[in-house]
Amino acid sequence: MSEALERIGQAAKNAAALAAKLTADAKNRVLNECAKALESNSGHILEENNLDLESAEGIKESFRDRLRLTAGRVKSMADGLRQVASLPDPTGEAVSMKTLPNGLTVIQKRVPMGVIAIIYEARPNVTADAFGLCFKAGSGVILRGGKEAIRSNTAIAQVFRGVLDANGLDPDIVQIITDTSRETAQELMRMNKYVDLLIPRGGAGLIQSVVNNSSIPVIETGVGNCHIFVDESADFNKAVPIIINAKTQRPGVCNAAEKLLIHENIAVEFLPVIVAALREKGVELRGDKRAVSLIPDIIPASEEDWRTEYADLIIAVKIVSDMDEAMAHIREYSSNHSEAVLTENYTNAQRFLNEVDSAAVYVNASTRFTDGGEFGFGAEIGISTQKLHARGPMGLKELTSTKYIIYGNGQIRK
Amino acid sequence: MSEALERIGQAAKNAAALAAKLTADAKNRVLNECAKALESNSGHILEENNLDLESAEGIKESFRDRLRLTAGRVKSMADGLRQVASLPDPTGEAVSMKTLPNGLTVIQKRVPMGVIAIIYEARPNVTADAFGLCFKAGSGVILRGGKEAIRSNTAIAQVFRGVLDANGLDPDIVQIITDTSRETAQELMRMNKYVDLLIPRGGAGLIQSVVNNSSIPVIETGVGNCHIFVDESADFNKAVPIIINAKTQRPGVCNAAEKLLIHENIAVEFLPVIVAALREKGVELRGDKRAVSLIPDIIPASEEDWRTEYADLIIAVKIVSDMDEAMAHIREYSSNHSEAVLTENYTNAQRFLNEVDSAAVYVNASTRFTDGGEFGFGAEIGISTQKLHARGPMGLKELTSTKYIIYGNGQIRK
Repeated sequence: MSEALERIGQAAKNAAALAAKLTADAKNRVLNECAKALESNSGHILEENNLDLESAEGIKESFRDRLRLTAGRVKSMADGLRQVASLPDPTGEAVSMKTLPNGLTVIQKRVPMGVIAIIYEARPNVTADAFGLCFKAGSGVILRGGKEAIRSNTAIAQVFRGVLDANGLDPDIVQIITDTSRETAQELMRMNKYVDLLIPRGGAGLIQSVVNNSSIPVIETGVGNCHIFVDESADFNKAVPIIINAKTQRPGVCNAAEKLLIHENIAVEFLPVIVAALREKGVELRGDKRAVSLIPDIIPASEEDWRTEYADLIIAVKIVSDMDEAMAHIREYSSNHSEAVLTENYTNAQRFLNEVDSAAVYVNASTRFTDGGEFGFGAEIGISTQKLHARGPMGLKELTSTKYIIYGNGQIRK
Repeated sequence: MSEALERIGQAAKNAAALAAKLTADAKNRVLNECAKALESNSGHILEENNLDLESAEGIKESFRDRLRLTAGRVKSMADGLRQVASLPDPTGEAVSMKTLPNGLTVIQKRVPMGVIAIIYEARPNVTADAFGLCFKAGSGVILRGGKEAIRSNTAIAQVFRGVLDANGLDPDIVQIITDTSRETAQELMRMNKYVDLLIPRGGAGLIQSVVNNSSIPVIETGVGNCHIFVDESADFNKAVPIIINAKTQRPGVCNAAEKLLIHENIAVEFLPVIVAALREKGVELRGDKRAVSLIPDIIPASEEDWRTEYADLIIAVKIVSDMDEAMAHIREYSSNHSEAVLTENYTNAQRFLNEVDSAAVYVNASTRFTDGGEFGFGAEIGISTQKLHARGPMGLKELTSTKYIIYGNGQIRK
């Protein structure tokens, strides 16, 4: 490990031990002051962001848009911190408590994670979001953002470090890795000695790279190849608005529907209706042979289509013989993020809920609800598609660990 | 990935989907039949174990002892399965349930993990323990044991596969990797496509290798460099039996005490008492300069001693100025498994419980209680020393995941 990273890791570990001891009142005061300081330093942050944007000249506009800050976006970051300040502290509660026959009282207590590292792309708002959530959860945080956003990220983190310092707290509770080389990212992923949890936030490539290279425990977030199965008993009056909502309300996000599976017994009647409704919203249709045979101007879908998260106004349609074929298709192709069945049949609804192995499984509702805000968590750090530790939307609680504390009065083991 | 492993992974994934649908009654019947079948096939299992032992001729006796099966040990494995059958099914419960303002009912439900792989050393009993726990938790299991135990492991797994088959279930719910090469183990650790969780069971070397090489989520278990801090207010009548118990009741296990930190204000009085008591039990004493200056025949401890899990009748003693120094020493050297403070001071007890960041933290009790059985879990797969997913003793519940199921009636996102 390089000396610079070793220093960052050790500083984070020390700072995290101090952060873990702060009361919720103290953390909330800091978060609210950070929000205010973001707003009052908006000018400087926007200047630094402008320098980042100048360096990113020539890069495509969607990328530059994610990188770009405005006074409004800085205000949104500040409001995000205020929102996190308003949420209950996730630590300190008893997950369970019991008194053993020998009189020992065993409490499983929710405690801070320790040091959390976040590797992300060129979205400066993640700097504020990640700090706010990790700090409120009592942890120290090491941030390694994309090189294109380095000036913006540093300016934002400097604001937080200044507030921590002014409150007599260790500014190393939040640290930015300014060396944005690939080698440093790789080294960070092996810092088990100092880092308890590593969360990648970004596209599928970034996430895969972290999963493959990290020896630190990782939570995999994000990829959503979400399916909706329209059963033969589906109520079309519910089905059409749900599909339109799941596909078009915000097509670029991970809980948007990407695939539509339709029971063959209703395909002749339902397919023209939903295709017309989707096209009216500007959605491109792709389909399997049977779909194409029913509506010839649907583009034939390739094998790759079934695995793709379009994150765009595109949907692929497949006609299936029954729910078993639909569930087998989901088992084979889904990223296991969110899937929905549209049905009025009780047994099929229950089977789909039980047998589809995804983070969120719906009956008669839009997949777009898989979201920490919608689920009432107040804020989220991402949506986990793995099965360990957290699955589905991750709020403050999912950023914590537990420990056992045991009150004895001289007990020894027999 | 080699074709053989690809086949094993695919078969495990398919079998796990079926295992996940079994009722507790069905799983318990299989576990009880497996117990019975182990006993009735005891002769064959012991023959195969004998062949393993013959191949392991010349290897040191402690290793051979772990490898060796007897009729009694086979009976113990069978009883272990019956015990697991008697425990409640960890899946199917609601972790939380709420109805959102829009009428959606969101249930976080405990569900099987999927496919669990276990990499372990030459202890054939792990084959039965791991199968029993994973199967009861509704998962499929891939077992990769040490090469020295391959015949024993295969014989045991064959018994389970026979029972599954006889019950009309997929025998691939439990599979043994018979190719015990290092390369195959490495490949197994990258099978994210099929394996949801990888648990290494064995010594520190095995665990480190898995942590460093696995891209599958891992739960790190086991290493225990456990500390007891004797505060100046400690009640010696409790302290002496607790220390003796924690060090000597079973010195080879991970929750045994390895280090003793003593407050300087009581060192002159307490050290001779505890040294005499430990020596009477055959414990070798090592110590820092101050301990050696008080009792000259204590062996001086090296820097390495402070990091070592002896797993033997050895303990290292350090005299500290106060609890802060004790906690700083623990922060630096502990494996964060189990630590205890012996004190009658309320504030110190609370501080130690809050600030020591280990899986189990005790006041006035032996560290030997960190155990799934003692905590009332009925059985355990190991003791996690990491912070993600599970920390401390891991029972059936820790082998499960969760998912969200959502009941709607046409809701779309605004």
